[in-house]
Amino acid sequence: MNKLISPFEAAYRLKENDNFLLITHRRPDGDTLGSAGALAQGLRELGKTVYVLKNPEATPRYEPFITDYIAPDDYKADYVIAVDTATTDLFPKNADEYKESVNLCIDHHGSNTMYADHVCLEISRASCGEIIFDILMAISGSISSITAERLYVALSTDTGCFSFSNTTGNTLYVASLLVEAGAPNKELNKKLFRTKTRGRIKIEGMLTSGLEFHLDDKVAIASITNEMMESANADEDDIDDIAALPGSIEGVCVGITIREMSSPTDCKISVRTRAPYDAQAICANFGGGGHKLAAGCSIEKSIDEIKEMLLEVLEEMFR
Amino acid sequence: MNKLISPFEAAYRLKENDNFLLITHRRPDGDTLGSAGALAQGLRELGKTVYVLKNPEATPRYEPFITDYIAPDDYKADYVIAVDTATTDLFPKNADEYKESVNLCIDHHGSNTMYADHVCLEISRASCGEIIFDILMAISGSISSITAERLYVALSTDTGCFSFSNTTGNTLYVASLLVEAGAPNKELNKKLFRTKTRGRIKIEGMLTSGLEFHLDDKVAIASITNEMMESANADEDDIDDIAALPGSIEGVCVGITIREMSSPTDCKISVRTRAPYDAQAICANFGGGGHKLAAGCSIEKSIDEIKEMLLEVLEEMFR
Repeated sequence: MNKLISPFEAAYRLKENDNFLLITHRRPDGDTLGSAGALAQGLRELGKTVYVLKNPEATPRYEPFITDYIAPDDYKADYVIAVDTATTDLFPKNADEYKESVNLCIDHHGSNTMYADHVCLEISRASCGEIIFDILMAISGSISSITAERLYVALSTDTGCFSFSNTTGNTLYVASLLVEAGAPNKELNKKLFRTKTRGRIKIEGMLTSGLEFHLDDKVAIASITNEMMESANADEDDIDDIAALPGSIEGVCVGITIREMSSPTDCKISVRTRAPYDAQAICANFGGGGHKLAAGCSIEKSIDEIKEMLLEVLEEMFR
Repeated sequence: MNKLISPFEAAYRLKENDNFLLITHRRPDGDTLGSAGALAQGLRELGKTVYVLKNPEATPRYEPFITDYIAPDDYKADYVIAVDTATTDLFPKNADEYKESVNLCIDHHGSNTMYADHVCLEISRASCGEIIFDILMAISGSISSITAERLYVALSTDTGCFSFSNTTGNTLYVASLLVEAGAPNKELNKKLFRTKTRGRIKIEGMLTSGLEFHLDDKVAIASITNEMMESANADEDDIDDIAALPGSIEGVCVGITIREMSSPTDCKISVRTRAPYDAQAICANFGGGGHKLAAGCSIEKSIDEIKEMLLEVLEEMFR
């Protein structure tokens, strides 16, 4: 049996089956929830029975895109689909029972562990939403404005509104078709990319004024303390992707964000680098990992101690 | 004679003529310089003689896109084209002699005064670059990677990397073709949208910490003093579009930025509103103007006096 299937074959399998359950990944983002919402909507419009498994970690930002499809507790699915989820380790707790019985996984992550019966994996795509688009077009040749809205959320959030380096000609082409199909890009962009919460603005202000530059300004270090979070009245949604900030400063090759977690000696470190500097290699020194240009680690020390440890490693690296 | 012509007819006229001079607008942005650079490059590839009139106000950010085509002082043009320029009032000083003799204007501004012999005006386009794309495709059916790069700069900068409300399906569609044609979108996005100068970061930090909220937090006011600019070592490029910041905060309906100019009692005020609030109407109280959601005015008072005057008008408006 060929495990790896094309969007066309995935479309065929969706046409042949019914009573679907869609699973999204932990710490759900716009791509996994937008993709699930679009696939559920698209299949329902074709007369299928489809539900999305509740994701306990969904935040108010993206939850509305799956609200209409949440599975009732007693729902019995015949065909289980995981979207945008590279491994079953990323399944939410309430999806444990499906870990061994996923019929189809639709994904774009190179790290996919091929845990499903069939895997529709397109690693050249910037977002899972682009693959869902191909599949739905292969089934019915058109998409509704509601489906287009969810897919636009998937594409735009995974590419930072088409600004990240993963954005391809295909991403922009599909986005153009989604807008023509009625995706309200003006309203979505305003909400997702052009609005900052009060908490976000305050945290950014504090983080920016406290920025430290080291090693001929090639390294920028930002800290986020629990005290800052409290005084800004900020939550996790507010500091989404804030680790990109120190690395976005002109001339900075390594941007570091140190975040206090449960206590002042339990910190999460995010490292963003500019090529050829290797974020993964930096974090490997402290038992962390990630990608070449974005990685992370946890260190049980105070912010000041961590800065010193990191600068020692970086000084060596720049030598 | 029909003044208003289609991109197809513009293409025909460009094919029939030669020895072109391209004029860009004052305070040149990515759209006017990217459009001029693309048109110059595209026409040169067709064997035409084309130059761009030097723009004295071009900044390092966008100047490189026209550097290869700057007209020598003694250049005698047979056919003059203005790009992205709504009125001859927006001509740079050194273009004065051409004000009465523009053969073709290519533009997307509804406020175009039809000053040229022929006007190719497409106000549904988010950027002038999209019209240049249509014209070049009508002439030769393809574009080179260099032309694609310049057009990508035009499209992406006029739409805030496809996030502003002017972005249409056509913008995204043309962008997808530009990327396929070789526009280096990853590098351009990193430079144009994902890098902040040290000056910008510092000014943003100061501006954010000094933000004032009024009238049930519906109004946010930011100030930029000359002292701030000096202490941040910031220039005009650094504060490009910074007036959007106060208006981008959740819940804020009117975002105001007051900027000290030559002296502390000579200020430029930028107003950004969320519909239905009318920025133009607010600024009209002080002799200014602009668009419904973005307008400006100048007031010769101190920042504190100006705040008071604005809040009086706004209190009335919200009542």
